[in-house]
Amino acid sequence: MNINDLVRGILNGDKRSIARAISIVENSDDEQRKNIIDKIYDYGNSKIIGITGPPGVGKSTIIGNIAPMLSKSGKISILAVDPASPFSGGSILGNRIRMQENLSKYDIYMRSTSNRLYEGGLSEYSWDIIKILEASGSDFIIVETVGSGQSDIDIMNVADLTCVILAPGLGDEIQAVKSGMMEIGDVFIMNKMDREDAYISIKDIMESLQISNKPNTPVIGLNSLTLDNYESFIDFILKWNGKNTERRNIRKIRQIIIERIFTTYSVYIESVDKNKLLGKNPYDIADDIMRNLDGLKNKYLEK
Amino acid sequence: MNINDLVRGILNGDKRSIARAISIVENSDDEQRKNIIDKIYDYGNSKIIGITGPPGVGKSTIIGNIAPMLSKSGKISILAVDPASPFSGGSILGNRIRMQENLSKYDIYMRSTSNRLYEGGLSEYSWDIIKILEASGSDFIIVETVGSGQSDIDIMNVADLTCVILAPGLGDEIQAVKSGMMEIGDVFIMNKMDREDAYISIKDIMESLQISNKPNTPVIGLNSLTLDNYESFIDFILKWNGKNTERRNIRKIRQIIIERIFTTYSVYIESVDKNKLLGKNPYDIADDIMRNLDGLKNKYLEK
Repeated sequence: MNINDLVRGILNGDKRSIARAISIVENSDDEQRKNIIDKIYDYGNSKIIGITGPPGVGKSTIIGNIAPMLSKSGKISILAVDPASPFSGGSILGNRIRMQENLSKYDIYMRSTSNRLYEGGLSEYSWDIIKILEASGSDFIIVETVGSGQSDIDIMNVADLTCVILAPGLGDEIQAVKSGMMEIGDVFIMNKMDREDAYISIKDIMESLQISNKPNTPVIGLNSLTLDNYESFIDFILKWNGKNTERRNIRKIRQIIIERIFTTYSVYIESVDKNKLLGKNPYDIADDIMRNLDGLKNKYLEK
Repeated sequence: MNINDLVRGILNGDKRSIARAISIVENSDDEQRKNIIDKIYDYGNSKIIGITGPPGVGKSTIIGNIAPMLSKSGKISILAVDPASPFSGGSILGNRIRMQENLSKYDIYMRSTSNRLYEGGLSEYSWDIIKILEASGSDFIIVETVGSGQSDIDIMNVADLTCVILAPGLGDEIQAVKSGMMEIGDVFIMNKMDREDAYISIKDIMESLQISNKPNTPVIGLNSLTLDNYESFIDFILKWNGKNTERRNIRKIRQIIIERIFTTYSVYIESVDKNKLLGKNPYDIADDIMRNLDGLKNKYLEK
């Protein structure tokens, strides 16, 4: 398949083309990624919905429930971001397989991507994958993060609407959530409203939002067994108009630059005498490299 | 306190000076960090012991037990790295407070540091903090990561000896651990040997090491209730001679460069017309910036 056929396939929403393009983006070099993105950049207009929250609160269940409901209002794609740390991989995968089976009757494209070791947060290429899903005609792109580590906070730089999912009975964890997660959520969802302690937990979150100077942030309770109150959440999503394109693009520019500079920087590091490296203070070596940025640039442009 | 007094304090192992220097490293600019590191870089020779593993396996308990034992052979410092994601913060903190109370009777310095949002893995300044602890005369520096996210893998780039802690009954998680963590451990510790399924879990890990082409990696079972077999672990640590200085320094150089380039890059991004930014493909803007690296360098050197 040549690149024009591939792009045509993406723009027509052909799932094989989408999958192929995402694989290229994940596994090829910068030049090939740029090639695809250049051709699709101007297409599409998706609402990007970030779903985050601690493990075990029911994120996958909620996505499995809202995706079919939202599909009445437009085309849905789902991107699930797996953690770089393998410690929490197993159970998540199981949930996602169940979700995928659930969604197979709707015309919903679902994809997983791993976040990488170094650059933190979401997958280095989540921006590109989202762009492909957008160009393929998605009206809503749901991005799920794993609820452990940096992707949970990075999601606010990517999504147009960030939903923090919580559940009663998180114990100690709720304190931690309160200290850091209040600022990233555009809406807070309390799942498992069938539980006795659910209303106290909602009250708790509302108080924390008050303290965090976000008293008007909505808190929505959901019962995922009965689907009680799901229509409020769907309604909120449909009415949400915030766009985050600028922040999303700045984040991506940063990632591209890091990658390019380190492609050339790695060449430099390789060429440094290892004995010199061991004896010398890293701050001094970094100074040397900064002084030689011209050389680095030329090496990059030669490529 | 001026910088020479501060450095003298560090070299004398004065805890107030150490704490002060770490705060400066965490909160000041690159120039001040470099200033301190320049003056202490040549001092000290510590064995850096990384302790990582999934939540709940007993990492803090093990550290609380081995630190006093190791202190018979030299001076101990402990650095606990907290996650950037606040989801898992609460319970960890509690464990650490208990550990700290436990260790207060020994002359052990303990410090927590948060890992930052962006650059992934361990705290951006863990290298500097380790350097300060090293210069203060520590024979052993124990670095604990939280067992969720990227710091668990990054620890192998920092520690001289990486210990992966596991426990029976991790269920699904053990599969994930096996798929990714086998390669980072220099030694695998099976805690909670009082449990019935402990021996099966040890056998399981040994088989995985065989498959991962690391059949000679030691697996040590510990019973943290009775302290059974702790002497084997201590013995292993004392005999370990591997040094990781080169990898640790290369990692740090990389972080310094990222930080410096982005200090100047941020100035550039600020100066870009936001409307232009929104309309343009991030790959093209990154190209522009790469072409202007000279300008960036000059801006940096002017500072």
